[in-house]
Amino acid sequence: MRPFALVTVDDVRAAAAHIAGVAVRTPLLAPVSWPGLWLKPENLQPIGAFKVRGAVHALACLPSNALAGGVVTHSSGNHGQALAFAAQRCGVRCVVVMPDVAPPIKVEAVRALGAEVVLVPPADREARTEQIAAARGLVVIPPFDHLDIIAGQGTVGLEIVADLPDVACVLVPVGGGGLASGVATAVKGLRPSARVVGVEPEVAADAAESLREGRVVTWPTEQTYRTAADGLRTNLSDLTLAHLRERLDGIITVTEAEILSTVGALARSARIVAEPSGAVAPAAWLHRRDELRDRFGVVDGPVVAVVTGGNIDPTLLADLILGNT
Amino acid sequence: MRPFALVTVDDVRAAAAHIAGVAVRTPLLAPVSWPGLWLKPENLQPIGAFKVRGAVHALACLPSNALAGGVVTHSSGNHGQALAFAAQRCGVRCVVVMPDVAPPIKVEAVRALGAEVVLVPPADREARTEQIAAARGLVVIPPFDHLDIIAGQGTVGLEIVADLPDVACVLVPVGGGGLASGVATAVKGLRPSARVVGVEPEVAADAAESLREGRVVTWPTEQTYRTAADGLRTNLSDLTLAHLRERLDGIITVTEAEILSTVGALARSARIVAEPSGAVAPAAWLHRRDELRDRFGVVDGPVVAVVTGGNIDPTLLADLILGNT
Repeated sequence: MRPFALVTVDDVRAAAAHIAGVAVRTPLLAPVSWPGLWLKPENLQPIGAFKVRGAVHALACLPSNALAGGVVTHSSGNHGQALAFAAQRCGVRCVVVMPDVAPPIKVEAVRALGAEVVLVPPADREARTEQIAAARGLVVIPPFDHLDIIAGQGTVGLEIVADLPDVACVLVPVGGGGLASGVATAVKGLRPSARVVGVEPEVAADAAESLREGRVVTWPTEQTYRTAADGLRTNLSDLTLAHLRERLDGIITVTEAEILSTVGALARSARIVAEPSGAVAPAAWLHRRDELRDRFGVVDGPVVAVVTGGNIDPTLLADLILGNT
Repeated sequence: MRPFALVTVDDVRAAAAHIAGVAVRTPLLAPVSWPGLWLKPENLQPIGAFKVRGAVHALACLPSNALAGGVVTHSSGNHGQALAFAAQRCGVRCVVVMPDVAPPIKVEAVRALGAEVVLVPPADREARTEQIAAARGLVVIPPFDHLDIIAGQGTVGLEIVADLPDVACVLVPVGGGGLASGVATAVKGLRPSARVVGVEPEVAADAAESLREGRVVTWPTEQTYRTAADGLRTNLSDLTLAHLRERLDGIITVTEAEILSTVGALARSARIVAEPSGAVAPAAWLHRRDELRDRFGVVDGPVVAVVTGGNIDPTLLADLILGNT
């Protein structure tokens, strides 16, 4: 693996200036049912997920002539919506290549933001994106394998430390690793004593294995598509792995039942709508307190769980609120 | 009606200082599905409703010897939770007198915050509260008929103007009128050209009638208990009517079907959980745009709807997310 220049806290600060007034400055929530836990509700962003932060910053960093030609990306959904949202605000063309198994609600949401959607088999996403970019002269803005995207997502961590300077631990989901890389950069940079712990679904725990092996281990899509947390089916890139090896304290895994029941608990006790990917971090606090203590030394002191998004099928949401899984 | 000294913008500013760090500084949300509408999500407060603002400020204003004896109130639920929360933080005793028809989820929530609950028939609430206060030496903190409560709730308006200085119209639910009085005070005081419009359920439109008549018109509980918006079944007081006559531009009413369908729409499109009382203000924007234009001259310019709370029975919530009513 060649050495990478990693994102810095100053890069994240620059991103914060770009997203101000476009992304919501989300507060920390402390539901009375869960003393000691704070939620960072990124489901409240305009497109229902944190991804708007990275997308807005990445477009702001493009030279204006490159931006004017338009952008393209591949995404399981939320990054696609985020890029469509950011492109619409800039008035530039946007194409989103999506897996043909993506939830229909996510496909429709991207189209409603004025973007063109191209549906392909999951394994073909990256190749088709490159092909379309070359054929139409579009700039590729990938969902996580990009310094500006990582810096943009890192603003979540900047805000956590600003609002709760004595934070003991931040729990952050790991899919492609862009959010976890950015948050770990900001939190460790500003408060080195705080723990930053990644959370993955047990059935898509490729990042945990990659960190153990010290290289990007890819799990087959047949395996990772078994998780309901569709935003976390992706494998790491060399760039995100380099950030996580340096700055993440480790990874906890949670079961599908724990993820799904946490979606219901968040609606009932915190009054927010989370998608399964958005529920994995609070699920770790609800179900892995022992591991947080034994592996990471998190005993007292506030824990923040990032609720990454809220784009969930209404039928599934209703079931989970009733406690069915 | 004797003349009242009304709450001032400076009173609301003083309340803002008291609640800082205790109440959540809620952001404004702009879901992409509803261009032109901003939501003020007070369901994100620790107890799931804006009422924490007034309760925390009212206790902060009590002389310490009076506070030490403990407090008592009557409430359909959210003010009771708010006072219990505020009293628990101060370490003082709290008794909450609740109607025996209140949703069980609200009764349990008050008890979980360490308060004693006394259940009585709806019509007896005020008399029993006075009786308990006298017998046990507790200070009565009423849910809305109180200058400090009005000033505390007014911080919602202060924050709206701070975040969106060019706000054209604020939609605020009217139950007892405490929130509407406070919000109208802050918004009209800081931005006189903005409209502040109250919203009521059609079947509990006592405030609209009171404003037309120029006196507090009380609707019987058999009538007002027909609305699912259990936080809005209360009649005004002379004090809140005096504020609303002076500072509110008028009132819009919405139907039960509109209120209930808006609960589902807020979960699906804004990813927040609202109780029926919390959905009436966005319901007015979704279903009464003509009336906003024709009666209040609101054409362009951003509209803010206050989502007051999110304490809803999970079974009802699940039904409404699926579009059933």
